[in-house]
Amino acid sequence: MEQVKLEWKGGMQFDAQVGEHTITLDGPEELGGMNIGARPKPLLLVALAGCTGMDIASLARKMRVEFERIEIEADAEKSDEIPVVYTAMTLKYRFEGKGIDPSKPLKMVSLSQERYCGVADMLRKVAPIAFEVYLNGERIDR
Amino acid sequence: MEQVKLEWKGGMQFDAQVGEHTITLDGPEELGGMNIGARPKPLLLVALAGCTGMDIASLARKMRVEFERIEIEADAEKSDEIPVVYTAMTLKYRFEGKGIDPSKPLKMVSLSQERYCGVADMLRKVAPIAFEVYLNGERIDR
Repeated sequence: MEQVKLEWKGGMQFDAQVGEHTITLDGPEELGGMNIGARPKPLLLVALAGCTGMDIASLARKMRVEFERIEIEADAEKSDEIPVVYTAMTLKYRFEGKGIDPSKPLKMVSLSQERYCGVADMLRKVAPIAFEVYLNGERIDR
Repeated sequence: MEQVKLEWKGGMQFDAQVGEHTITLDGPEELGGMNIGARPKPLLLVALAGCTGMDIASLARKMRVEFERIEIEADAEKSDEIPVVYTAMTLKYRFEGKGIDPSKPLKMVSLSQERYCGVADMLRKVAPIAFEVYLNGERIDR
């Protein structure tokens, strides 16, 4: 079983205990918060990008590919009505490194998306997840 | 559109930029991480508990209910196979405060679950979400 605990700190602030780590959540000032922590909903995107990112980090080690930099951006389109939900998500993988065969990052991304990443597997039931892969600034997934 | 950006810091570590806030993610030592940040998947539970928690904080102000303490626990059962996904989730709301009519926290929880909480609306498509409500240690939702 997985478990997290949140404690209210007054106003819109909650401190979340995740294993040994604390994540502070807060609302923006216009909603009565003090903006001293992240808002909850985008944590879905952090979970998504982090899950696939750790797959990539692990596969890069196994496949002996040395990246100089990896950035993963996760975007979501939102509904207009309440409750506000995500209607589409996009993951953008930006890899940088010298002499890397584009087939390798592409293989890592597809292994993560199709096999390993539990968060992607879950959130795909919420809304479609598209992905784009860039190597040294050039799009390589098409 | 909502957007987050993660940057790889080596090993299993990623730093996530969420608005003006940074959340550090890392893997456990047995998977090549250094455990200096939260793992990604439980952030789904943080998003869920945080979203409904902020609804409650906001409704408490509107309904003029003064809680001394609010704790929200989110648990998930996980699948055995890869990809590991959540198969059931439970939210436990623990309210504390003097002279509070139990109908009020119950109303806040059902307004959040049925109407306002976008994260619950999304994650319900992934797995069922049960909830339990406690006031001063006593379960009040049945």
